[in-house]
Parts: sequence; C-alpha cells; structure tokens
Amino acid sequence: MLGKIEHLGIAVKDLDKANETYTKLLGRKPYKQEEVASEHVMTSFFMSGENKIELLAATHEDSAISKYIAKRGEGIHHVAFAVENIYEELERLKKEGFTILNAEPKKGADNKLIAFVHPKDSNGVLVELCQEITE
Amino acid sequence: MLGKIEHLGIAVKDLDKANETYTKLLGRKPYKQEEVASEHVMTSFFMSGENKIELLAATHEDSAISKYIAKRGEGIHHVAFAVENIYEELERLKKEGFTILNAEPKKGADNKLIAFVHPKDSNGVLVELCQEITE
Repeated sequence: MLGKIEHLGIAVKDLDKANETYTKLLGRKPYKQEEVASEHVMTSFFMSGENKIELLAATHEDSAISKYIAKRGEGIHHVAFAVENIYEELERLKKEGFTILNAEPKKGADNKLIAFVHPKDSNGVLVELCQEITE
Repeated sequence: MLGKIEHLGIAVKDLDKANETYTKLLGRKPYKQEEVASEHVMTSFFMSGENKIELLAATHEDSAISKYIAKRGEGIHHVAFAVENIYEELERLKKEGFTILNAEPKKGADNKLIAFVHPKDSNGVLVELCQEITE
C-alpha cells in the first residue's frame, strides 16, 4: 500500500528563479538544496504541511529533466509516494502488472531509496516510490 | 502560507479503468465518486496517507479536462494545497504578482472552496488553493 505524497517533483529551467517563485507561492523558503550528480540534477526542497515540493533543474543536457522540459515544457515531473518497504511494494506492483523502471531501488535525493513506475501504466503519471534510509 | 497537498488532480480518459488502475497502484479503493456538473467532470477520490488523489474524467467535450487531454494527454492536471483562509491567501498571492484565474473562490468537489493560480506564474504548474467549507 502506498502512503502519503512524500513529494511532488517539478521540472524547472532556472533553479534560482524557481526558488524565488515558490518561496512567494508557498510562503516559505526552501529548507535545502542538494545535487544528485548521478541524475545530472540540482534539487531544492520546500515543506508544505507534511508534504514536500522538490524543484528539479538539469545540470547537464543529458539529464532526464532537460529532455522532459524540451519535450513538454516546465511542470510537474513526478509524484513520489512514501512506502515502508520499497522491495515489498515493488514486488506487489510487478504482480499487479506495473512496469518498474529500475531493476533495483537506487539512492535518490533527501536520503531516500527510490524506484519509478512507468507512466504508461498509470495514466501518464510518473510515479516514484520512496523509502527513508535509516541506518 | 500554503498547507499540505490536499490532493493531486489527474486527468484520465476512462474513469472506470483509471479507478481499477489506481486501486491496484495505491493498494486501496476510491472512497467516493462525485460529479462536478459546472465543470463537466466526474471525479473519483482515493486517500493515500494524509493526501488524496483525485481522478478527473470529462463528461462533456467542453470540459477543461477534455481539452487538457487533447493537448497534453493523460497525466497530472493540478496540485491543490490546503489553506485556512482562501480569501487571505488569494490577496497575498495577488500582491506577490500571481495571476488568479477566479474572480471569487468557487465551490469545488469534496466540499471545498477553490481557486486556481495561472500556471504561467508557477513554472507550468496549475495550482489550486482549497479551503474546507465548514458550516
């Protein structure tokens, strides 16, 4: 079972300008900025109630975010749901017929293990599962 | 200040099929279905943690949802943030330079007063503010 919306990922061209926009919109500042070098993205996180908004800007033209913006323009890129056990949920979803984009969960931003469900299986919505890494 | 993500609105072509898909994805059934006749949409709501997923299907070709799907395909249509006082938040956002799409908040699905911010002002994201109607 999927849990709360852990975050909503928004693809933006210019992270500094988008930080200003979302600071005004949400009425609060980002609480952190973090690079995910493996994905060629710089991220910025805001809290909004119990949920997070993740702004995503490409740091390289090979980034999935550059390609997304070139094709669709800026906008909501994915929705991430919190799960308690990502391995169990991935098994459950595979059995239900969903296509999982990652052979294994990988380390994402904000100390999370993440994996994606193909948007063709969920009405065009790129769904991320994410589990907090606790050690 | 905007609060939690009250719901995420997803534009779908076939509500019955999408209900099946999201029941499998989220691991739970929708808790209600509700027509918003003024918007020519039928909606279906799921809980996911403290948040909701709202599936939106057009009931008429003039619906904003038909037009959205014709242009962009199925996918995430809007994100709605909970606010305590929608009138105060709309005033605050107007002063910050955001374009509000509704002259006055209107009655939406799920017993809410709602208003939208133009996506051109928020990096392509259609933002809804919503306040619970308490009487």
